[in-house]
Amino acid sequence: MSDLPAAIEIHEEGPREGFQYEKKIFPLADRVALVNALSHTGLKQIQVASFVSPKHVPQMADSAEFFAAIEKVPGVKHTGLWLNETGFRRASAVKNVDLKGVLLFYASDAFALQNNGCNAEEMRKRQDDWIRLYDDAGVAIASVYIMTAFGCNLQGEVPVEAVTENVRWVLERFGKNGRPIPAIYLADTVGWAVPTEVERRVGAVRELAPTARIGLHLHDTRGAGPASFYAALRMGVDLFDSSVAGLGGCPFAGHSHGAAAGNICTEDIVFMAHEMGIETDVNLDALIEAALFAERIIGRPLGGRIMHSGSLTRFHETARSRKLV
Amino acid sequence: MSDLPAAIEIHEEGPREGFQYEKKIFPLADRVALVNALSHTGLKQIQVASFVSPKHVPQMADSAEFFAAIEKVPGVKHTGLWLNETGFRRASAVKNVDLKGVLLFYASDAFALQNNGCNAEEMRKRQDDWIRLYDDAGVAIASVYIMTAFGCNLQGEVPVEAVTENVRWVLERFGKNGRPIPAIYLADTVGWAVPTEVERRVGAVRELAPTARIGLHLHDTRGAGPASFYAALRMGVDLFDSSVAGLGGCPFAGHSHGAAAGNICTEDIVFMAHEMGIETDVNLDALIEAALFAERIIGRPLGGRIMHSGSLTRFHETARSRKLV
Repeated sequence: MSDLPAAIEIHEEGPREGFQYEKKIFPLADRVALVNALSHTGLKQIQVASFVSPKHVPQMADSAEFFAAIEKVPGVKHTGLWLNETGFRRASAVKNVDLKGVLLFYASDAFALQNNGCNAEEMRKRQDDWIRLYDDAGVAIASVYIMTAFGCNLQGEVPVEAVTENVRWVLERFGKNGRPIPAIYLADTVGWAVPTEVERRVGAVRELAPTARIGLHLHDTRGAGPASFYAALRMGVDLFDSSVAGLGGCPFAGHSHGAAAGNICTEDIVFMAHEMGIETDVNLDALIEAALFAERIIGRPLGGRIMHSGSLTRFHETARSRKLV
Repeated sequence: MSDLPAAIEIHEEGPREGFQYEKKIFPLADRVALVNALSHTGLKQIQVASFVSPKHVPQMADSAEFFAAIEKVPGVKHTGLWLNETGFRRASAVKNVDLKGVLLFYASDAFALQNNGCNAEEMRKRQDDWIRLYDDAGVAIASVYIMTAFGCNLQGEVPVEAVTENVRWVLERFGKNGRPIPAIYLADTVGWAVPTEVERRVGAVRELAPTARIGLHLHDTRGAGPASFYAALRMGVDLFDSSVAGLGGCPFAGHSHGAAAGNICTEDIVFMAHEMGIETDVNLDALIEAALFAERIIGRPLGGRIMHSGSLTRFHETARSRKLV
């Protein structure tokens, strides 16, 4: 147990993932109220919305108004997502966006081709342009994401080497000349991760980059998300993306192969962390209230567990008041 | 990874848990068809129904007809549940029931009082009557269940000692005079278990009873079920109860504190096991079909994940055909 980190940092992705995933456009006031509720739970980083083509993603057309309307809470970063320079420029001009530089890589050529029209190697080359862009804008490069790091629904198996060659590329450019290594995220884009693969792939990255901070972006597509989370904790990983209420998928939508499932559920991993003595700085019961609010907005049952069963807070309080613990 | 067992044994509890949990009584033909489907997946033990008071549990009033109607598949045990001698006698008289002797213990006095009207110690004493009853009937005592082994919604925290004193009782009566120690199940009756507590409690039981086989009965009430499953695997546990499709609860029924949630989901743990190289003898895709059939019977989305997202079988087959693995 002593291998587990004392504290973990959770980046909330529910609002962006959730509202982007849905076909319907939800009232701005509801979306703002959800972000505000989350901003008062103790979460330190919340991804609010993306700056992508309003033609392709009409749900995100009002991202500027969305950001402008949220309450800024001290200590809470509100981040956005962009996939091209236009998006980054838009985000840069918007009030309340905390800009964080992100580089994107693929461990699967097939997925890169589908999403970016290039293979994984070309995608790496394009990141040099992003580095220049961020440098010119004075935006620190906080993290790199290696997508399809555990497997790919188009290509199938993804060898570990396809992950580590991206890490090697990063290490050629960072970790020297006063340029810190960004957090390296292994993203299980399509829900293939299981605990032993988390151990294998995190282990391989750590061997290459022992001083880099490693993050995990997990989806609970096939029920192994919480187990992969625990495996990552055991590897000392202390940085996770997750979604309140499991927002960002519709895990019960029927047997459609490849159906989207949300990120691992924020309040469920907060519960698990706290019960294991790992600090998150998050108020679990406030977060559960936010999850229930998200479910009321979306209007159908979401995949989170503890939001429907209730925390153990009252039992622990009773035990403390009786000096049992 | 080398600590993981090479193979695990899964006892399917979905039919009994699921149909008993629901208020509605489902057509016998549907229930029989589900059990028959499960009997052809490779699962070796399926709990079909319980022999309890038809006045209190009308859903289980036709257990005898249910058992009589199922197809007996070689190598598959079809078990029943009983809570008193009358129930055991009924089960003994019914066609197709594979009788397995079970002893029941509590780690929480409060839960024992609610369910059995006695405290945990008195519950232990009553098991001597059960031992005699099983002995007289020539029924081997296969397992002991220690309920509320991780926590209790009535009492709160459950100390490890409350678990191990039941184990001590068992060891006074078994493991000598040619009487083998039954499998000792830690049952997370109300969904408190997290990985570190699995490690702590399984470790404590193993220290006391190093030669006993340990089983886990987990509920995925708060999202930590799959992680607890993985923690148990790491401890070498190779015996699990689970429910197809997560039957036996309604995890999305709203924020009712203490709401029931089903056992961990059979096909989700089979998937995770296979992906980690652990054998189950179960055909995952056949099991997913059975889970989808269970969902059609129940008529609302069930909590299983992979049944809604699809297995990775086709990717692995492609990889094998290309000799990539």
